Amino acid sequence: MRAAVYYGKNKLEIEDVPEPTPGEGQVKIKVSRNGICGTDLHEYYDGPIFIPPTDPHPLTGQCMPLTLGHEFSGVVTEIGPNVTDIREGDRVTIEPIYRCGECRPCRTGHYNLCNVIGFHGLMADGGMAEYTVVPSNQVHKLPDNVSLEMGALVEPMSVAYHAATLGEVNDQSRALIYGAGPIGIGLWFALRGMGLTEIDVVEPSETRRRSIEALGARTLDPTKQDVTALIADRTNGNGVDAAFDAAGVAPAVQSALECLGERRPLISVAIYEKPLPTPLINLVLRERRIQGTICYTAADYSAVIDLMAKGHYNTTGWVEDVPLSGVVEKGFEQLRAGQKMKLLVDPTT
Amino acid sequence: MRAAVYYGKNKLEIEDVPEPTPGEGQVKIKVSRNGICGTDLHEYYDGPIFIPPTDPHPLTGQCMPLTLGHEFSGVVTEIGPNVTDIREGDRVTIEPIYRCGECRPCRTGHYNLCNVIGFHGLMADGGMAEYTVVPSNQVHKLPDNVSLEMGALVEPMSVAYHAATLGEVNDQSRALIYGAGPIGIGLWFALRGMGLTEIDVVEPSETRRRSIEALGARTLDPTKQDVTALIADRTNGNGVDAAFDAAGVAPAVQSALECLGERRPLISVAIYEKPLPTPLINLVLRERRIQGTICYTAADYSAVIDLMAKGHYNTTGWVEDVPLSGVVEKGFEQLRAGQKMKLLVDPTT
Ligand SMILES: [Zn+2]
Ligand SMILES: [Zn+2]
Ligand SMILES: [Zn+2]
Ligand SMILES: [Zn+2]
Repeated sequence: MRAAVYYGKNKLEIEDVPEPTPGEGQVKIKVSRNGICGTDLHEYYDGPIFIPPTDPHPLTGQCMPLTLGHEFSGVVTEIGPNVTDIREGDRVTIEPIYRCGECRPCRTGHYNLCNVIGFHGLMADGGMAEYTVVPSNQVHKLPDNVSLEMGALVEPMSVAYHAATLGEVNDQSRALIYGAGPIGIGLWFALRGMGLTEIDVVEPSETRRRSIEALGARTLDPTKQDVTALIADRTNGNGVDAAFDAAGVAPAVQSALECLGERRPLISVAIYEKPLPTPLINLVLRERRIQGTICYTAADYSAVIDLMAKGHYNTTGWVEDVPLSGVVEKGFEQLRAGQKMKLLVDPTT
Repeated sequence: MRAAVYYGKNKLEIEDVPEPTPGEGQVKIKVSRNGICGTDLHEYYDGPIFIPPTDPHPLTGQCMPLTLGHEFSGVVTEIGPNVTDIREGDRVTIEPIYRCGECRPCRTGHYNLCNVIGFHGLMADGGMAEYTVVPSNQVHKLPDNVSLEMGALVEPMSVAYHAATLGEVNDQSRALIYGAGPIGIGLWFALRGMGLTEIDVVEPSETRRRSIEALGARTLDPTKQDVTALIADRTNGNGVDAAFDAAGVAPAVQSALECLGERRPLISVAIYEKPLPTPLINLVLRERRIQGTICYTAADYSAVIDLMAKGHYNTTGWVEDVPLSGVVEKGFEQLRAGQKMKLLVDPTT
């Protein structure tokens, strides 16, 4: 079968590799779509970062070279021994997190913070291939009315959904999202799914503003609008109930900390490459907080799949397919250049 | 009577002023001790900052010139009309916060965040005087075994106690305090009062370390010890359950964000004069948070007074008296030079 095998920085080969066989407790999946993620770009252009170069990962036993891809959907084609709840033909999406089950975060239900966490597609052969095998407890079935294309988005949409839950909002809340990339879009869908109607998306790029506006979002252009004054005015000085930083830049953090209500959170869901100058005095004076968030657990996957089944998500205008054969040229390079928002690899092409 | 009247930057006069008379709902207090606070120093050396220079404060009707002093204790000498629960001779300490009662923070029980907040001693004539009058609902009685000297410390100790409650700790928790000034000391007393036994205080100044060690605290010297490695070792890599920044400097924030356990808070209880470079990635990767805190409400006052009555607080080695006549030379100047930790003005001298 064909697979995108990672050998280190700037080296991703489309190769013929043996088809995997599901072992005890595993299932084999014929991959339909696999999303390309910022993490994949980081590994390709600057890595290896998360991928273990030489020492096998303690939970998967694998290291470089391995097949990329952690955001995927597909159809079950084979069942390993002792798998009872999944059948051949099931349409599924995969939770890529491997966890130890024994560390404090795992024991307290927060395996997204497992001390020895591993990811399918970073520490085990992933979804940028015709087939892949995964532990059955990481498989989520898709309802009939959720497409496989949509199913490949469950992973990034769960990152955003998990972040949204930490905002502690309800349908009467007012929220601000900074950044309209895939996670910003996911935050907007998640918050709408939670019933919020008062959401503004702050995004300096006109292309990204147009793209999220087409989905129904209200936007603000921080290069032309005084976001702080505008939000103060709209909220009678009370501020918003939650802000989300999916931009990862200092102006977003600073603006958010001016717009938040007292005792309310700024949720950080960005990969900050260096320390940002942060006006902590704005936390102190109004007892605000900055709350970090990463990944998701099964509950977030379930919630996102439910919302997808209810029609809350829409891929129009921001999600496109690319062939496996062109994953670097048509995939990574276009994403890095900012020409595309979200690309799904189709391993059959 | 004699009072320390503030006329603006570098101008604090010890003057003879008329004794105040308690109005409706007020009581008159003969001040025993009034603590000098960092806020008072700021007003004197860099102000006016909080003190309204020309426009009367909406809740108190006062502006400059006015008598300083918001951390005080004393004995009730006169009762205004319609005060039923306080008597002449009561030994008391005062909550200096004036609140509107109508804004969202007030309505939700967080009057420490009142939108029009005022302070006795900043927006009304305060406790650096022989007498002062205050609203009866801001008066807390002192138990017989709590001295008036101790009573003057209830205000700053309540700032620290309120911060400690936001740490969401219990008697099995492990905590780190950055900074051993009066608020750091107050955090240590508060956490000990909550039953914690595993507390380390990180403080670069040897004088301050010796001073808090004399109270029974365990300290770390960040200029000589690798705090991150040491805490990781002591906690088997799990990190501490809460960290408190009472230092307000970047190395404290950075160290705290390395030492915290997953999903645990750094409580910010410092007045940050500028944005600090903050490694937000350390929030994201372990879902940690930074929580701001300011002031207190009546519940914090009650808790501190209870702990004082149980003998949990001790003024030895860090609290001293100064005469009202020497408030600037013996008070402000020694504090600014770092020669003293906490000074209480005695208005009778
Ligand atoms: Zn991803
Ligand atoms: Zn684990
Ligand atoms: Zn004070
Ligand atoms: Zn109020």
